[in-house]
Amino acid sequence: MAITGLSYIAGQWLGNQEGKTFQSFCPGTNEQLPTTFYDATEAQLEQAAEAAQSAFKTYRKLSNQQRAEFLNTIAEEIMSLGDILIETTMQETNLPRQRLEGERMRTMTQLRAFANALEQDLAPLNLNYVDEADANRTPLPKPRTELNFLPVGVVAVFGASNFPYAFSTIGGDTAAALAAGCPVIVKTHNAHPATSELMTQAMDSAIKKCGMPAGVFSMLQAKAYSVSHQLVAHPVVKAVGFTGSFNVANALIETINKREEAIPFYGELGSVNPQVIFKEKAAQDGAALAQQLVASMLMGNGQFCTSPGVWFVPTGQAQFEQAAIEAVKGAGSDTLLTPGILKSFISAIAGFEGNSDVTRLAKGQLDKPYHADAHLYACDVDTFLASEQLQEEVFGPCALIVRYDNEQSLARAVDALAGQLTASVHGTEEELAQNADLISDLHYKVGRIAVGQMPTGVEVCASMNHGGPFPSSTDVRSTSVGLQAMTRFLRPLCIQS
Amino acid sequence: MAITGLSYIAGQWLGNQEGKTFQSFCPGTNEQLPTTFYDATEAQLEQAAEAAQSAFKTYRKLSNQQRAEFLNTIAEEIMSLGDILIETTMQETNLPRQRLEGERMRTMTQLRAFANALEQDLAPLNLNYVDEADANRTPLPKPRTELNFLPVGVVAVFGASNFPYAFSTIGGDTAAALAAGCPVIVKTHNAHPATSELMTQAMDSAIKKCGMPAGVFSMLQAKAYSVSHQLVAHPVVKAVGFTGSFNVANALIETINKREEAIPFYGELGSVNPQVIFKEKAAQDGAALAQQLVASMLMGNGQFCTSPGVWFVPTGQAQFEQAAIEAVKGAGSDTLLTPGILKSFISAIAGFEGNSDVTRLAKGQLDKPYHADAHLYACDVDTFLASEQLQEEVFGPCALIVRYDNEQSLARAVDALAGQLTASVHGTEEELAQNADLISDLHYKVGRIAVGQMPTGVEVCASMNHGGPFPSSTDVRSTSVGLQAMTRFLRPLCIQS
Repeated sequence: MAITGLSYIAGQWLGNQEGKTFQSFCPGTNEQLPTTFYDATEAQLEQAAEAAQSAFKTYRKLSNQQRAEFLNTIAEEIMSLGDILIETTMQETNLPRQRLEGERMRTMTQLRAFANALEQDLAPLNLNYVDEADANRTPLPKPRTELNFLPVGVVAVFGASNFPYAFSTIGGDTAAALAAGCPVIVKTHNAHPATSELMTQAMDSAIKKCGMPAGVFSMLQAKAYSVSHQLVAHPVVKAVGFTGSFNVANALIETINKREEAIPFYGELGSVNPQVIFKEKAAQDGAALAQQLVASMLMGNGQFCTSPGVWFVPTGQAQFEQAAIEAVKGAGSDTLLTPGILKSFISAIAGFEGNSDVTRLAKGQLDKPYHADAHLYACDVDTFLASEQLQEEVFGPCALIVRYDNEQSLARAVDALAGQLTASVHGTEEELAQNADLISDLHYKVGRIAVGQMPTGVEVCASMNHGGPFPSSTDVRSTSVGLQAMTRFLRPLCIQS
Repeated sequence: MAITGLSYIAGQWLGNQEGKTFQSFCPGTNEQLPTTFYDATEAQLEQAAEAAQSAFKTYRKLSNQQRAEFLNTIAEEIMSLGDILIETTMQETNLPRQRLEGERMRTMTQLRAFANALEQDLAPLNLNYVDEADANRTPLPKPRTELNFLPVGVVAVFGASNFPYAFSTIGGDTAAALAAGCPVIVKTHNAHPATSELMTQAMDSAIKKCGMPAGVFSMLQAKAYSVSHQLVAHPVVKAVGFTGSFNVANALIETINKREEAIPFYGELGSVNPQVIFKEKAAQDGAALAQQLVASMLMGNGQFCTSPGVWFVPTGQAQFEQAAIEAVKGAGSDTLLTPGILKSFISAIAGFEGNSDVTRLAKGQLDKPYHADAHLYACDVDTFLASEQLQEEVFGPCALIVRYDNEQSLARAVDALAGQLTASVHGTEEELAQNADLISDLHYKVGRIAVGQMPTGVEVCASMNHGGPFPSSTDVRSTSVGLQAMTRFLRPLCIQS
C-alpha cells in the first residue's frame, strides 16, 4: 500500500518522469510531507478520456443490478483499506479521527444508497412515465410513449478539500455518475493526494472484482490548473461535478463556455447560510440556541459549506449574545485544511477588523501561529447591506451577528441576500406563523431551509437538496447530495411505438 | 382588433416613435404587408423586466388552482379571437387553414394539460419526495425532509417561425413557464408579428379576467437582434426557452456566457431525424413506407423540426426508391415561411447538386419562382460520412437516401451521427430483435425513438421528450414538449424540520 504519487489511467498507474511534481502537506505540523506526486500529462488525460468513452459503450449496457454490485463492492473495498486510510487523511488534513470515520461511513452510505436505488430499478427516483396507446383517438390514433433515462456520458469530477472522502475521489459525484451509468475521470484535490491514491486503490480492486471495463474510472493527480481546464474542455466529457471555490469554478466555466457543445457544470460553491432568529425564541432559548450555533459554526473548524456564517438576531438579545461570546471564547483553535485557506481566512478577518461599523464580540484562543481561531462579530442591518464582504462566505471559524431592529429591517436584509445553500429559521410556533411571508421569501434564496435546526448535517436521502441559487451553486436545478444527485447525469429518452 | 404594431409591456401597449420599424411579410404573394411594427426599445425591455420581477413575488404565491384557471382562461381567450387569428396567420405564414386550426387546437391542449396537472397539484409530474423523521436513529436523530419545487423566476421565450401558435407567443414554453409560476417575457418571431399581437390580446384579456399581476407577461416586437441579446443578458431573467436555428442560438449563448450568473438556455434547434430501414421491411412494405416518409417529410413543406431528412435504406431497394421518387415528383411546390428560409433552402439544394457523389432521384414541380419544390437525393454511406453538409438539417422539403450495403456500414453511419431530436427504426419484429445493439446505440443519438412510426407528430403527454443531444438541442436533459417541459422552470427546495 505504498504511495506512488502516480495517476491512475484506465487501470494503469502512470507517472510523469519529466513534468511537474508536487508534495503533499501536513497542516497539523505546517510542513510539507516527503511524498512526491506527479502532475498528470496531457497525453495521460487523453488516454483516460479515450478509455472512458470506450468504457461508456460497455458500462451503459450493464444492468442496474450489475452497477449496484459494483457500487457495493467499491464501498467494501474502501473499508478494506483499513486504518491506513484514516491515518493518511489525518496527516493530510489534520481532521480528527472521529470526524473522518464518520465521513467514511457517510461515503459508504452514499454508495449503498445509490446501489439500493438501482436494485429497485430506480423506483425511488420516480422517473417512470408511460402513456398508453389509444387506437381510437381522433383525428389520429395515439401512440404508446414511454420515458426512459440514459446516462449522459463521461463525467469529470473535482474533489473538494474539506470532505476528503464524501466530496472527493469516490464521493457523492463519483457515486452518482457511476450509478447513472457514466464513466468518471476524477481530478483529485491536491490537499489530500495520498488519500486520493488509497481511494483509487480501492476502486481498482472493485473494478477488477466486478470485471468492469478499465476506462470506467481514471484519477488524475495534479497541482497545475491546466489539467483541470483540459479535462473540462475535452469533447468526450459531457458533465462536470465540482465542489470548491467560486473563483476556481468561474475559471472552469470560462473554459467550458469555449466548447462547441455546452455541458452542464454542477458546481457546489458555498454560502453564508443565514440563520434567522425571532425575538421570542431568542428570549426563551437564547443561550441554548447560541451554543448550538457556535457548535455548528465550529464543525470542521468552520470549513463545512453549510456552516452558519450570518445570524440575524433581534437587537438587544444580551442573553443570546453573551452565550455565543462565551462559547467562542472557550473554543480551542485548530488548523485549516491548506495554507491557501488559512491565508484567505486571515485576509477575511482583517476585512472585518478594518470595518469600523463591525464590532468584534469574541475571539478564541490561538494555540499556534498557523491555526485559525474562532471569531464572532456583530453589526447592524445597514452595515451588513452596505458591505459586499460581510455578505460573502468566510471559509473558517467566523460568524457575524446582524442585529435587526424590527420586521422591516429583517425583511430588507432577507430581500438583499444572495443565493444560499441553506438557511434556518428559529422561532416559536407563533412566530413562524406570523412571519410566513418572510419565510416564504427566504425560500427563494436557498436550496434547503431548516426549521429550528442547525444548517450543518446534510442527510443522504431522496428528498435532500444540497445546492441553491447562484452564487451558492452554479445550477439551482440540481443537488449534489441525495438520490436526486444521480439525475444530474441522466437524460430522458422517449420510446414511441 | 386592429393591429397596432406595438409591444405589450406589463399591461400597456407601447410603441417606439423614434426607433426602428419593420413590416410583416406575406410568403403567399412574396410581398411585404402594409402594417408597420415597432422594435421594442431598451427602456421598454427594462420596464418589462422590472414589472416581471415585481409580478414574480405575487404570481409565485398563487395556488396551483389559481394558475390552472389562468391557463384555461388563456386557452378560452385564444379561441375567442375567432377566425381573424387563423386568417391573419394564413397571410403571414401561408400555412393552410387546416394546419393552423390543428395547431391552434394543439396550443389549447398544451395550456389545458398544464392546467390539468396543476389541478392535481402536479401529481402527474412525480415530484413528491418525503423522508420521515426518525428520532431513534444513531448516532444522530434523522430530521424530516421534504422536497418541494419553486419557480426559477422570470423566463424569456423566443417564438419560432414554423409553429406560429404552438411554439411561439403563447406556445409550449410560455405555457410551461406560467404553469411553473414564472412570469414570461416573449420576444416574438418577426415572421408573424400580427399573429403575435393577436395572441397577446388574448393574453391581456386573460390577465384582466383572472386579476393577474400585469408584469406576468410582456411581449416584445423586434426585428433587430439587439433586443434578443439585451433580454437574455438581463439579470432578472433566470431561464430562456428558444426554438430556432443553430446560429441564432449560438449567438444568444455567447451573450449568456458573459452574464455573471449562468442561466439555462433551453434551445430546441433541429436535426435530420434519421430513418433506419431494414431490408426485409423494405422488401415487404417498401412502397407504403416510402409514401409515408415522403408525406412526413412534406409536412409543413419540410419545415417541421422532426421532418425525416436522412433515410438509411439497404442498397438495391428499387420498389422503395421508386415509390419515393413518384411521391416526390407528384408533390406540388409550396412557399417557405420567410425569404431567409427560402434562401437557405436554395443554398442547401445547390450544395447537394454540387456534390458529384450525390444523385438527384426526384424533384417536385415548381409552381412559382419563390416556392420551394420537394427534392429527393441519394448517396452511399461513405459519401454521407465524408460530408458535413449532408449530415446537416435542410429546413424545407428535401430528403437524402443513404444506401447501405451491410450491417457494418449502417453501424458506422449510426455511430457517426450527431445528436438528433428523433429517429425511427422500420423493421420486421425479427429485424428489430436482431439489430438490438445498433438500435441501442441509436438511442444515445436521439431524444425520441419511434419504432415503426413517422418522426413527425410530437404528442403532448407526460412521457414525451422533445429535445436531444447537441446539436439538436442545447440541453439534452430537457424537453420542450409535454408535461416535463414545466420542470425546466422549477427548481428543488428541501424543507427540513
